[in-house]
Amino acid sequence: MVFELLSKDTQTLARRGRIRTSHGIVETPVFMPVGTQGSVKSLTPHDLFKEDCQIILGNTYHLYLRPGHERIARLGGLHRFMAWDRSILTDSGGYQVFSLAKIRRIEEEGVEFQSHIDGSRHRLTPERVMEIQHDLGSDIAMVLDECTPYPVSYEYARSSVDLSLKWALRCKVSHTRDDQALFGIVQGSVFLNLRKECLERLMEIGFDGYAVGSLSVGEPKEVMLEVLEGILPLFPENAPRYLMGVGTPEDIVEGVALGVDMFDCVLPTRNARNGTLFTSWGKINIKNQWYADDERPVDPTCSCYTCRHFSRAYLRHLYVARELLSYRLNTIHNLHFYLSMMKEIRQAIEEGNFSLWRRSFYEKRLSGENDF
Amino acid sequence: MVFELLSKDTQTLARRGRIRTSHGIVETPVFMPVGTQGSVKSLTPHDLFKEDCQIILGNTYHLYLRPGHERIARLGGLHRFMAWDRSILTDSGGYQVFSLAKIRRIEEEGVEFQSHIDGSRHRLTPERVMEIQHDLGSDIAMVLDECTPYPVSYEYARSSVDLSLKWALRCKVSHTRDDQALFGIVQGSVFLNLRKECLERLMEIGFDGYAVGSLSVGEPKEVMLEVLEGILPLFPENAPRYLMGVGTPEDIVEGVALGVDMFDCVLPTRNARNGTLFTSWGKINIKNQWYADDERPVDPTCSCYTCRHFSRAYLRHLYVARELLSYRLNTIHNLHFYLSMMKEIRQAIEEGNFSLWRRSFYEKRLSGENDF
Repeated sequence: MVFELLSKDTQTLARRGRIRTSHGIVETPVFMPVGTQGSVKSLTPHDLFKEDCQIILGNTYHLYLRPGHERIARLGGLHRFMAWDRSILTDSGGYQVFSLAKIRRIEEEGVEFQSHIDGSRHRLTPERVMEIQHDLGSDIAMVLDECTPYPVSYEYARSSVDLSLKWALRCKVSHTRDDQALFGIVQGSVFLNLRKECLERLMEIGFDGYAVGSLSVGEPKEVMLEVLEGILPLFPENAPRYLMGVGTPEDIVEGVALGVDMFDCVLPTRNARNGTLFTSWGKINIKNQWYADDERPVDPTCSCYTCRHFSRAYLRHLYVARELLSYRLNTIHNLHFYLSMMKEIRQAIEEGNFSLWRRSFYEKRLSGENDF
Repeated sequence: MVFELLSKDTQTLARRGRIRTSHGIVETPVFMPVGTQGSVKSLTPHDLFKEDCQIILGNTYHLYLRPGHERIARLGGLHRFMAWDRSILTDSGGYQVFSLAKIRRIEEEGVEFQSHIDGSRHRLTPERVMEIQHDLGSDIAMVLDECTPYPVSYEYARSSVDLSLKWALRCKVSHTRDDQALFGIVQGSVFLNLRKECLERLMEIGFDGYAVGSLSVGEPKEVMLEVLEGILPLFPENAPRYLMGVGTPEDIVEGVALGVDMFDCVLPTRNARNGTLFTSWGKINIKNQWYADDERPVDPTCSCYTCRHFSRAYLRHLYVARELLSYRLNTIHNLHFYLSMMKEIRQAIEEGNFSLWRRSFYEKRLSGENDF
């Protein structure tokens, strides 16, 4: 993997970059749709191509449990399995172990848990996590880390950082695949000195990219931004910076302004399935009776397949009637919103007017839905 | 609507024809995918275009209850509502009243029932059914009829035919839309003399096309074929013949051989959602453990999007993991199977070798899955 820093904004810390993986180019800042179980829910690879999506995220935890990484390896790897020939980043599975699995025990060796599917017992160690991601064949792998909740005591965060660093080193040592990049993950909860120390020690080990974990886990928005503001300037300039599991359109805009290159979040896809749709002036909920006779598209300024063909009234009908097409049309729209926002952001940084773009982004949101 | 009989098979009663509706051409024999609530479940209009689908069926009962025919009319009609600019046939809603609704009372005036959605009371009369289909703006409307179950007594079938004929006449009288064809429906259960009488009296009223109702409702297959064999030769040659709610690939092949021009059935779409996939050698169930490591496409001879990109192993995984994409990929495959079978049938009739094609169709099915 190669990362090229193309340009930097003059008024903010925003960066315009380009990642080359074994499966192509990823223009940054980038948002990665989440393809949990080998599919971005309700979409085909073709749908993602059409949205100019260059990279998706796969969840190691889910794929490990079902259908199993060895099976995916036998079937030619995750790209071939899901017929997606562009880039894939896989997480380490740690986050899902901490958020989904039933019982767990964290030890220095690794983490023990019970599957949320059938209760079967499993153990993930740093070495095992590398082996699984090796088998999946993702372009970017993540180290195993302990995801701390919010709030957590300083003492706990301290020892958790130590554990995550030990795991990070073991991941690095056992990572063997040349065509796969490996990213380290900065932990340390809301404690800036822990975050800094963690980053420094990760940089000593040396990774292809650096992520920020355990943010947007319940802490106030200002705290998240403070942490980012405090640590991002210390990140190596010539490596991609990935803010994990974030977030809302506003979070992403602010993350970009602070120097983040990569984002992922279930928000656009999960919200779509709940009928919550993103527009340039904010969110709407399509199940609202208000839309029953509304023949306008979700967002009159949007050029996605859904907005070009269907009315709010139709989308509301599909949602209320629990039609399967509802999930797909809503997901296409929400992902288009996120991915075209990223496209605008990249262009604005290139043209040196990201701050202007950001102001107009917030102005549209203040203008309110009633204008439409 | 114009129907043109292009050619007739010499060895069977199969016909090759062409219907021109207000929304384009429909080559017959044709299979119409079912778009119950304003969408062919899990598919976009674009998916249907790509399968060369020329006509779909919409269910009046469902659309009347939700979102309501008046709303659809306000929104520009069913074509515009669902963004489908090719032909649509709507049924009368009668079949669903008899199969889905909770309580019903059949009187000469019409049929009273309670919605399966919220228990609300409704009454459908022939005039009302015409009004609803007028509002939906389908290209082909169907008369209201009483669907008889199997078995039913001769006496009941006799009086039911009388009622359906009275309703058919009232439908014809109250049908006002010039750009919409109206088809009559032959009833009479398994009693050939009732079927014949019903057909004759429908022809006296005069319709744009003639359908056969209440077949494939539980009677033995031979009985269905006997009824078709007995009455289809009496149908007017210059009007389309529609066998409602049928059926399996075999049913369709036999229906074509007996002179049927149009078919509809939920089988390919519903089966898809249950993981049952059609192939040239028969059905397979993708959830079978057998397929967990099978990297072949569902049907190696199939050219659909699903078979061109995904393995049985992947489709099984999506099904087992209850991924939304499972429904769509399976539906694309099954509809492709049905629609390309119809294409082959049309070509075979044109080229005068339908009997040969039919033999090869059955031979493939006898060859068994193990060959693949």
